[in-house]
Amino acid sequence: MALPSPVVNLYTLSKYDFYKKEPKIEKDTSVADRLARLSFKFLYERRHEDQRCRHLTGAFTCSFNLLSIQEHNHPHLLLLQIGNTFHKLPGGRLKPGENEIEGLKRKLTSKIGFNFPDRVPDWQIGECVARWWRPNFERYVYPYCPNITEPKECRMIYMVHLSGTEYFAVPQNLKLLAVPFFELYDNAQRYGTIISKIPHQLSRFQFNMINNNNN
Amino acid sequence: MALPSPVVNLYTLSKYDFYKKEPKIEKDTSVADRLARLSFKFLYERRHEDQRCRHLTGAFTCSFNLLSIQEHNHPHLLLLQIGNTFHKLPGGRLKPGENEIEGLKRKLTSKIGFNFPDRVPDWQIGECVARWWRPNFERYVYPYCPNITEPKECRMIYMVHLSGTEYFAVPQNLKLLAVPFFELYDNAQRYGTIISKIPHQLSRFQFNMINNNNN
Repeated sequence: MALPSPVVNLYTLSKYDFYKKEPKIEKDTSVADRLARLSFKFLYERRHEDQRCRHLTGAFTCSFNLLSIQEHNHPHLLLLQIGNTFHKLPGGRLKPGENEIEGLKRKLTSKIGFNFPDRVPDWQIGECVARWWRPNFERYVYPYCPNITEPKECRMIYMVHLSGTEYFAVPQNLKLLAVPFFELYDNAQRYGTIISKIPHQLSRFQFNMINNNNN
Repeated sequence: MALPSPVVNLYTLSKYDFYKKEPKIEKDTSVADRLARLSFKFLYERRHEDQRCRHLTGAFTCSFNLLSIQEHNHPHLLLLQIGNTFHKLPGGRLKPGENEIEGLKRKLTSKIGFNFPDRVPDWQIGECVARWWRPNFERYVYPYCPNITEPKECRMIYMVHLSGTEYFAVPQNLKLLAVPFFELYDNAQRYGTIISKIPHQLSRFQFNMINNNNN
């Protein structure tokens, strides 16, 4: 029954190509805005008896992707930076009835890929890394399902296995940053609850550092 | 490549039998004592060119087990309490050359089982949940391998899948406590860095709450 730890190959940033694409307007300009929109949609759906967006135990399901690389043999996470202070993982809400993995790929392409038919990247979605629950329309999220009848949101985080051949197309108004694990670790003040806990949740993975001159 | 989240069945505490056994004397009475012993052993081994206890990239490897149950449909973790304030997971250091899974089972039996030939429990060791590294002979541990040549200790945490038929034999000087996830969550002050982060590391698991009257 005991399973080996999953292995992830990490290539250096210089293995990848980077492009710019048209700016991506954020739907919400603050956390309060986002919570207000979530609450509105939730109540709207209930009124119209349409709960198709709630995939898991009645909560809205958002999925996010982890893209990892290495620099100086230390793992780094790729984060989208909005303005100077806000960071997020590429992802978003699943469509009604959408398969989770298809939704993750769609969101990755829309956030950091080109959607031209001949350039859609072949993302390899891997292990579920974490799941966070929002019991109420508030800032607080928890890594376990709260004992209430209607949790409001479930955020799932998945590992993406990069092969060193992908490219990234970053919206002009955003930056794609490689942030080392030691910078993220327990740094909730800068990166928020969810991102600052990713190093903990990845500790079971075995990272295989691949240097460009090895290939 | 995308893998489904592992499922863990959680039974209520009343499914299990509890016994007392002879007291188990702690090797160390404080964290400082433990670090001093670790340091002594490390240097002793180096002097005698015997590094057989260092299983993983040269660090001493300790393995710990997670035993989970449910009460009121909320997951709980079984922790050993020493005195009134100190909590730990059942586990310990692997022997030279010992297989990890065999070592985990041996430690579980020695800590909370009977070692009589006809009563040795059939522990089901499951997924690796976390790995923590101690770069120096100090209190600080990190969930990623530090960029130094000789990390001093690696602690691995594994899920144990209980079937509701096990028994626990608790040393008279210890208590076996079921602590709810919401109590552990981010409560490093009471439970320490490692235990307080377990709810984060288990968020990817699907807990299947089994009530006694279902069986």
